[in-house]
Amino acid sequence: MGVNRRFVLAQRPEGVPDARTFLRDDVAIPEPGEGEILVRNVFIPVDPGMRPALTANPIGVDAFEAFPIGALVGYMTVGAVIESRDPAFKPGDWVTDMMMWQDYAVTSGKTARKIDAAVGPTAALGILGIPGLSAWAGLVCLAAPQPGETVVVTSAAGAVGSIAGQIAKNIGCRVVGVAGGADKCAWLVSELGFDAAVDYRAEPDIGAAVRRACPEGVDILFDNVGNASIDALMPLLRINGRITICGQVAEYNLPLDQRPGIHNTGRFVSHRLSMRGLFVYDHAAHFPEALATMAGWAAKGRLTLKETIIDGFDNIPAAFASLFTGKAAGRTIVRIDAD
Amino acid sequence: MGVNRRFVLAQRPEGVPDARTFLRDDVAIPEPGEGEILVRNVFIPVDPGMRPALTANPIGVDAFEAFPIGALVGYMTVGAVIESRDPAFKPGDWVTDMMMWQDYAVTSGKTARKIDAAVGPTAALGILGIPGLSAWAGLVCLAAPQPGETVVVTSAAGAVGSIAGQIAKNIGCRVVGVAGGADKCAWLVSELGFDAAVDYRAEPDIGAAVRRACPEGVDILFDNVGNASIDALMPLLRINGRITICGQVAEYNLPLDQRPGIHNTGRFVSHRLSMRGLFVYDHAAHFPEALATMAGWAAKGRLTLKETIIDGFDNIPAAFASLFTGKAAGRTIVRIDAD
Repeated sequence: MGVNRRFVLAQRPEGVPDARTFLRDDVAIPEPGEGEILVRNVFIPVDPGMRPALTANPIGVDAFEAFPIGALVGYMTVGAVIESRDPAFKPGDWVTDMMMWQDYAVTSGKTARKIDAAVGPTAALGILGIPGLSAWAGLVCLAAPQPGETVVVTSAAGAVGSIAGQIAKNIGCRVVGVAGGADKCAWLVSELGFDAAVDYRAEPDIGAAVRRACPEGVDILFDNVGNASIDALMPLLRINGRITICGQVAEYNLPLDQRPGIHNTGRFVSHRLSMRGLFVYDHAAHFPEALATMAGWAAKGRLTLKETIIDGFDNIPAAFASLFTGKAAGRTIVRIDAD
Repeated sequence: MGVNRRFVLAQRPEGVPDARTFLRDDVAIPEPGEGEILVRNVFIPVDPGMRPALTANPIGVDAFEAFPIGALVGYMTVGAVIESRDPAFKPGDWVTDMMMWQDYAVTSGKTARKIDAAVGPTAALGILGIPGLSAWAGLVCLAAPQPGETVVVTSAAGAVGSIAGQIAKNIGCRVVGVAGGADKCAWLVSELGFDAAVDYRAEPDIGAAVRRACPEGVDILFDNVGNASIDALMPLLRINGRITICGQVAEYNLPLDQRPGIHNTGRFVSHRLSMRGLFVYDHAAHFPEALATMAGWAAKGRLTLKETIIDGFDNIPAAFASLFTGKAAGRTIVRIDAD
């Protein structure tokens, strides 16, 4: 009976999570029951969207449960079946499921989904996983982009943002990204085909900088950053403009009373704006179409996701914290099979 | 040749408009050309929605034109045809049109609409006019209320708010109003059939007070007040909650940098909220259905609008200013035919 390494929530972070936030709490490797499978995690991505669930009363939210202190943390991962008591799975199969930040998980065919190894095991954590589906649902389902419209994506070099921008390009939109750093901005334009990118670290006035890139205004703002970002870009929105609140990475680490506000709401009336919050699972009916379309684009090289692979189980917390300092573009994934 | 009294914009107000804002600037009574009609204004309502157009750069708005200094101000009025050079109109016909704050207007059948005198001339300024259509469009077209849902209306004793609440009751919703003063609140419940009303002047915490009236939460917030109101009530919104920004009466008199913000946007994601701004004319395709339905309710006593009639042309500016101190319930209309 081996050891199952796990990270649990040690204390609720104030601000960016740090070394005190998570604690190694190893247990015995679990055993699968009848009809279940034992999976060895291999790829554990880190998601900024997990941050609100670390806070006891996240932003007045009561639809999500916060992780209790001492609870195993994590989200969707990819692993290989080690032992199967379900004839539909065999050892060696790649699967994805909510298998958390740990070495081994017991799950079953009720929630585990087999991965087509031909497309690469990490695709299920990116284009063909929650980031891709979030980008699709937030852009296509909530904002209904039309060819020729102008789409601005913030945190555009992130996993969801970079996919959303590419989806918009494939639909025929003009796409401008906002990201931090000249390298990321150059990459968005040269590698991903964005029409322009604005480096928020180099621009004292983001609104003015995006306006220079969008002189005729903006139809859709796909925001991953938060209220200050929306407030700064609101004056660019055209009549019938749409805002998708997909994430709020600049604010997850702030207490509610320190968060900036959206002030410029007069424009909602004058320009008939709409703003909607994304909860990706609401759009499950669209997932088959989304996955088929995105897989088709990916096969033709028209949709890619940059992956940063970090080896070593113990690096998971630091990889998670790095999401909030904006270091890596694309998806950050910790690989744990070489430990 | 008589005198046509008019009010023009004398200077842009800072804060609530006052005696310096408007100036009497009388001219000769105009003469109708071929195909035109001359109308004597009788009922001139005052509208809080006119306030943004008095400001040079209203809240970053560029879809509306502000009134130039020296321009005749006003909005929709009701008057009687005095002289007609269009066979479709005859002297004595009641008409409504954008005839502004003046005694006489020249207009034509292109924009003037005849009023059915049987329903009373001021109905065209209320239930069967822009206030009624704004209430309908903001509630029915933008928020799609379903029977059994809970609707909260702010500035609920105002013209649009009181109609919106009654529409929601007629649809089968539970309706809670927020208004200023015990008298208005009692009137909303006893006369208009609201399920409950909250007096914001008596409550230190509006959010808590409305929560007591809506223990299961709120499906639709029909807001006429502004960002602070939305921020306070946001935590009550249920999953798939909808916010209509219809008006922002608490903020029209504030410069943008002094306006409160909406901070609590995490709930947009956790509860899949949507927020839309109303521009009533976008929904013109629904006006015939709206007018027919509301006229039917009005005929059965299921939809009423309180009117406060003030006599005297020179009282128009003060009546307008009083909208921002919240004195009168319902619609405030200046009658000018007795001067």
